[in-house]
Amino acid sequence: MKPSIPQGTRDFGPEVVRKRQFILQTIRSVFERYGFQPLETPAMENLDTLMGKYGEEGDKLIFKILNNGLSDPKNSEKAKQAFENVLQGKNDKNLTERALKYDLTIPFARYVAMNHGQLTLPFKRYQIQPVWRADRPQKGRYREFYQCDADVVGSNSLLNEVELVLIYATAFSALNIPVEIRLNNRRILAGLAAACGGSDKLVDITVAIDKLDKIGIEKVKEELTTRGLSDTQIAIIERYLNISGSNDEKIAALSDLLAGEESALKGLAETRTILNQAVPLIGSDTIDVVVDFTLARGLNYYTGTIFEIKAKGVQMGSIGGGGRYDDLTGLFGVPGIPGVGISFGVDRIYDVMEELGAFPESVHTSTEILFFNLGETESLAALALCTKLRNHGTACELYHENVKFNKQFSYADKRNIPYVAIIGSEELESKTVTLKNIVTGHQEKKSWAELEEQFKKNGWNTSKN
Amino acid sequence: MKPSIPQGTRDFGPEVVRKRQFILQTIRSVFERYGFQPLETPAMENLDTLMGKYGEEGDKLIFKILNNGLSDPKNSEKAKQAFENVLQGKNDKNLTERALKYDLTIPFARYVAMNHGQLTLPFKRYQIQPVWRADRPQKGRYREFYQCDADVVGSNSLLNEVELVLIYATAFSALNIPVEIRLNNRRILAGLAAACGGSDKLVDITVAIDKLDKIGIEKVKEELTTRGLSDTQIAIIERYLNISGSNDEKIAALSDLLAGEESALKGLAETRTILNQAVPLIGSDTIDVVVDFTLARGLNYYTGTIFEIKAKGVQMGSIGGGGRYDDLTGLFGVPGIPGVGISFGVDRIYDVMEELGAFPESVHTSTEILFFNLGETESLAALALCTKLRNHGTACELYHENVKFNKQFSYADKRNIPYVAIIGSEELESKTVTLKNIVTGHQEKKSWAELEEQFKKNGWNTSKN
Repeated sequence: MKPSIPQGTRDFGPEVVRKRQFILQTIRSVFERYGFQPLETPAMENLDTLMGKYGEEGDKLIFKILNNGLSDPKNSEKAKQAFENVLQGKNDKNLTERALKYDLTIPFARYVAMNHGQLTLPFKRYQIQPVWRADRPQKGRYREFYQCDADVVGSNSLLNEVELVLIYATAFSALNIPVEIRLNNRRILAGLAAACGGSDKLVDITVAIDKLDKIGIEKVKEELTTRGLSDTQIAIIERYLNISGSNDEKIAALSDLLAGEESALKGLAETRTILNQAVPLIGSDTIDVVVDFTLARGLNYYTGTIFEIKAKGVQMGSIGGGGRYDDLTGLFGVPGIPGVGISFGVDRIYDVMEELGAFPESVHTSTEILFFNLGETESLAALALCTKLRNHGTACELYHENVKFNKQFSYADKRNIPYVAIIGSEELESKTVTLKNIVTGHQEKKSWAELEEQFKKNGWNTSKN
Repeated sequence: MKPSIPQGTRDFGPEVVRKRQFILQTIRSVFERYGFQPLETPAMENLDTLMGKYGEEGDKLIFKILNNGLSDPKNSEKAKQAFENVLQGKNDKNLTERALKYDLTIPFARYVAMNHGQLTLPFKRYQIQPVWRADRPQKGRYREFYQCDADVVGSNSLLNEVELVLIYATAFSALNIPVEIRLNNRRILAGLAAACGGSDKLVDITVAIDKLDKIGIEKVKEELTTRGLSDTQIAIIERYLNISGSNDEKIAALSDLLAGEESALKGLAETRTILNQAVPLIGSDTIDVVVDFTLARGLNYYTGTIFEIKAKGVQMGSIGGGGRYDDLTGLFGVPGIPGVGISFGVDRIYDVMEELGAFPESVHTSTEILFFNLGETESLAALALCTKLRNHGTACELYHENVKFNKQFSYADKRNIPYVAIIGSEELESKTVTLKNIVTGHQEKKSWAELEEQFKKNGWNTSKN
């Protein structure tokens, strides 16, 4: 049997795991510095928890798990009925009652609802785990992929938005990705809708605006006409979309355009506060925070600030996004918990870093030294030295058998190991080692103590953060 | 709707995630120092890959994933037939063709078989991922749990066994768990069977021996009688089981008892080599390596050395184990790849560490300093200082709103944050901060620069290992 893996899933070999770990570890470390706490929820959730939360299309993409024990005769009648239901598109607990999680937000909401009595609010949590979607696989879209989210729940303070901007700035700066952090506010969009005849226009306007990048202003105007907006209203929207300049200039222009709209002015004031507080604290000139009134992401869910991240200098959709919402856990019977959150698009970040060559050299190296195996006594001396280095925190290996130099060199080469250490009979006698850098070709003899000194690290301490 | 999670699954809140991460990160760091490379395989495998690999009982415990699109009328006829098959205990691709992985070994074998042309052998991989089993949940047994495995494939060298012993020793020493690393060898058991009348007795003997701990020697002898062994044969087995003393004494006694059995002598020689090479390199007096001829674990699979880990001073089954096998990938059409591997029982290790109080103090602290929020200007100064500390690698938080001291203290207390930093109007003017250790009650005023100096870490470097 020729083995394979399911469509839309991936094996991650060593090199890829290291790069992905670099990304996740960098982001995790930033979350931790900002006081966010880790949460992990199971891969499986009760089907009840997930169904109805992602719209009709989303529901269809949930991977459901078959109950076990169906072939047990005592279950078969129920199972048959259940199966009829499933054929008609209904779920039935006698056939399936569990499913793989579809995102991290609903399981987080379920967790908060289950534990809200014990949680200290505001609760700042981050969560980095795989999710599963039965989407048609295509380039860059997988059926099993990681999400990486940070949310603060139980606080309405804008300080949270400010800190989330700083988290984005710190993380992308550490990842060597120049980005624009784009900001908008749902209240501003609501104000625009009000200025165009009422809040019932909000969906029409934002659906059209969302397409601006793809179809251009003329097509957006056509769509607005089709959706029943008048020329006067469309003129306001065109002026809105044409607002440009620095953040200050944009804010001033919008204050003029929507001067009478209280909601818009509140949204603008919030945006101004976030800019004023966050921008001076960003210590990197590769990170811009940009007000973008055309940003309309995730409209139905968000109620205040909206974030979106665009990598500069690469052709790629957004690599992160988020926003403020009013009510995380109402669906699970616990109303009144507002929050704000962001997410990082791990797969796209990986692709951007590949394209920019942004991964540090260190992710390509794992083992630093290969000790050659030149016989039993020699290899035991090598193993002893190797063990000392390992205890100091250096990754090293002893070749597993005494074979020709060529073969041992070739292993070092294929594994991208930069140093080989040779202890032959001569070195054994003089308690030395011949250390060769196989990148530069430089070779020198050192005492065992010198070698130990050269590769001394902080030992365990380096690994426990 | 009152939310819940599926039976046998767990949410891991912040404190538990930190402890689990401490365990996994400690083990991962040891794997890396020994030149093992990370691998991650998907949660979902093709059902074909898994079925038939775990015995009849195992097959029943595999979680199968329902195909999507069953309610689509064009699929319904096929689905109905498929369902009939499933009711009869057969799998059918029209209903389910994917499943959640049941262990890490079969997916690893599948990966090696798929990629053996590209892999540099010996391939040393580690893998730390969840697996799923539809077992009846009970104390300490979950339906979703982590496995943590390291294997070397493509090498017959005993050096691998030696290094795996050192990995166990290093890891459990770093985890502060005193352990016995128990060693046996399948060849020794085979030699005993040969001495008792032939290799066909091997299964009978080992099944009985495996129960020694639970039922005692008399019952084991009864079972051996029932299984058809003669009194003379049982006498040999009893002498075998009664062998005691130091490792050297045990080995000498066994060499006598099975002097004529070539297989046993080979197994003994291997065991002696592993002891001679590994034990002198273990730098911890809490780790013992013990020859245990009664160890019979995983018989059908292992062909050489067998490992098992027993924590000293706690009532708990083995917290790790492994062994050498002849053929990893034959089932997937690629014969001739031998290997040796070990695994760590993460959940049990967690429980042992709780019982021994072995977690370091540092896992209980996340955020180190809470900056109080005493008004807009004060909090902006605090945020600026907070950001500096974060950039140095210190986890800190600014309370999200300006409320009474009590409430802010209470947050620090509940979150187990050891320091609070207060910048009020007076401190703001003098560019100082009042730093209070809420464990000791000690309080002092510092300049902002002094505070920064006190908490300076290695910055990013601490996070990237």
